[in-house]
Amino acid sequence: MSTRYGSRPTMKDVAATAGVGLKTVSRVVNGEAGVTPDMAARVQAAIAELGFRRNDSARLLRKGRTASVGLLLEDIADPFSGQLSRAVEEVARMHGSLLFTGSSGEDARHEQELALAFCARRVDGLVVVPAGGDHRYLLPELAAGIAAVFVDRPAQLIDADAALTDNVGGAREGVAHLIRHGHRRIAFLGDLPQIHTAAERLRGYREAMAEAGLPVDEAWIAMAPTDPASVAASVDRVTGGAAPVTAVLSGNNRITLGVLRRLPALSPRPALVGFDDLELADLLTPGLTVVAQDPAALGRAAADLLFRRLAGDDAPPRRIVLPARLIPRGSGEAGPDGR
Amino acid sequence: MSTRYGSRPTMKDVAATAGVGLKTVSRVVNGEAGVTPDMAARVQAAIAELGFRRNDSARLLRKGRTASVGLLLEDIADPFSGQLSRAVEEVARMHGSLLFTGSSGEDARHEQELALAFCARRVDGLVVVPAGGDHRYLLPELAAGIAAVFVDRPAQLIDADAALTDNVGGAREGVAHLIRHGHRRIAFLGDLPQIHTAAERLRGYREAMAEAGLPVDEAWIAMAPTDPASVAASVDRVTGGAAPVTAVLSGNNRITLGVLRRLPALSPRPALVGFDDLELADLLTPGLTVVAQDPAALGRAAADLLFRRLAGDDAPPRRIVLPARLIPRGSGEAGPDGR
Repeated sequence: MSTRYGSRPTMKDVAATAGVGLKTVSRVVNGEAGVTPDMAARVQAAIAELGFRRNDSARLLRKGRTASVGLLLEDIADPFSGQLSRAVEEVARMHGSLLFTGSSGEDARHEQELALAFCARRVDGLVVVPAGGDHRYLLPELAAGIAAVFVDRPAQLIDADAALTDNVGGAREGVAHLIRHGHRRIAFLGDLPQIHTAAERLRGYREAMAEAGLPVDEAWIAMAPTDPASVAASVDRVTGGAAPVTAVLSGNNRITLGVLRRLPALSPRPALVGFDDLELADLLTPGLTVVAQDPAALGRAAADLLFRRLAGDDAPPRRIVLPARLIPRGSGEAGPDGR
Repeated sequence: MSTRYGSRPTMKDVAATAGVGLKTVSRVVNGEAGVTPDMAARVQAAIAELGFRRNDSARLLRKGRTASVGLLLEDIADPFSGQLSRAVEEVARMHGSLLFTGSSGEDARHEQELALAFCARRVDGLVVVPAGGDHRYLLPELAAGIAAVFVDRPAQLIDADAALTDNVGGAREGVAHLIRHGHRRIAFLGDLPQIHTAAERLRGYREAMAEAGLPVDEAWIAMAPTDPASVAASVDRVTGGAAPVTAVLSGNNRITLGVLRRLPALSPRPALVGFDDLELADLLTPGLTVVAQDPAALGRAAADLLFRRLAGDDAPPRRIVLPARLIPRGSGEAGPDGR
């Protein structure tokens, strides 16, 4: 096959060593019937002696499938991605499928490169946390039979399965919680506005304020990068000035980290509800109140959708929406006077 | 090629549509010379019209390599694995390679299944956080030319490249730090003793105690599962009884989480140094003192070793050992009286 794998024993070598025909070896290797126990034992002994291993890639490619799935994340190092990834892996494993993973780094061009690289390896399907705003580049792949499910954020400009969190509802609930604790001036610190989840959470914030009949000062809203310095600048802006906010809804786990790092410098300390849970949230003083997503449930839902498609389900694209859950722990229950 | 991908356009289809020969299409697709600009334009137009995509798996297999790497983790959902994974991915990307990932769940049998499944897809190499105690199952794969680098823990019963943290030195430094703050009775809460890193960190604990001339009561040592209930039981045991410890070295991030959850129930509160850093460690009260590994540096070192091997480096197996770093933040600086 090549120089690199020239030293790999082949089925022919096994047949020669066992003193049987090639077809017999093939039957044993592929678990097919029609081989006597004695023959099978001789083949197994030759396999063990030579260290022969079946080449699944070649075998699967001949069958027209690869028993592999491409999982495209924003950043595998983010805890949200890690939990989602583990859940997809477990579903894939039940279906005998291996997982390619890759991180787009919130870069549409890199998302496309990775997705097409997975497709060029003929993955059976893709699970995608999309970074880009135009997924028409996938149309030839979908037409050729690759299944694709979007997760966390929907596909753009194509119609595809998606597993999402109820971002509007979750943000609305977080803001309503702050309003119930007496806050009237509430900030929303979100990720960049072109990110679907950020835009949806902003919408939930606006809806909750409108439902309570509260005006929104646009100065209370920051849609910005999530690095600590940017978040600190946003915190300073919304808590400074003539009418500072008394509470903050932070739009994702990275923004929450930035806010938490800035809070000790502030007096009075604004109430805080974070979108996304954090591992040590209950051990902080005060405990961190969050609107929690369930990344593992998202991953499972997306992978289940994918394998249903691979099993032949050709119903119109589905959208599964999972609820977000408010977990009060202290930081979101302080009143406007900081207590 | 198959029923499933029967609808995919082939190079033959492109040649027919463009009105050129198959060899011309092949030259354009593979970026080879010898095609006039006019011909190339006609081929590109046919490719766009038909939605043709090169099949990289078949192409790479013919060349005897797959431009893919298998990364075997303990649990991709663990932040340590996530950071390590991202670093491996970035190095692989620079080398034009895609990543299969899988989680062994600390199960030796599952590690072997996954590693061999990756090999059966003819990955060029493996990066393995091993769970098992016998890696001879990889010998036929290594003989056939698959490169393997172990990370976080070394291979067992085979000689292979490894990128490790200085676990003995890190634990020794953590315990010496507690001793410098006046502690004499110090507990070590580690993971299961068959796990290499757990055994090494226990060794570092014993060395630091011996260096300071301090006796070790075996009741101060717990090598146990890392679920919260087990850790809580270990904490209660070492802080109870006639001669309770005044300080704890917790052996990894999951054990530290368990200890942190149990501490509020204890008075006096023992001093704590955790092996592995945690994302909110600096925001706790007191801040969490840790012996920090650098999972991204481990991943980079392992991936660099791997790609050096794939580039033809056939020097004897190397072991790279990275330092761990003590970060004092408060919890490890309290004296034996709890202040």
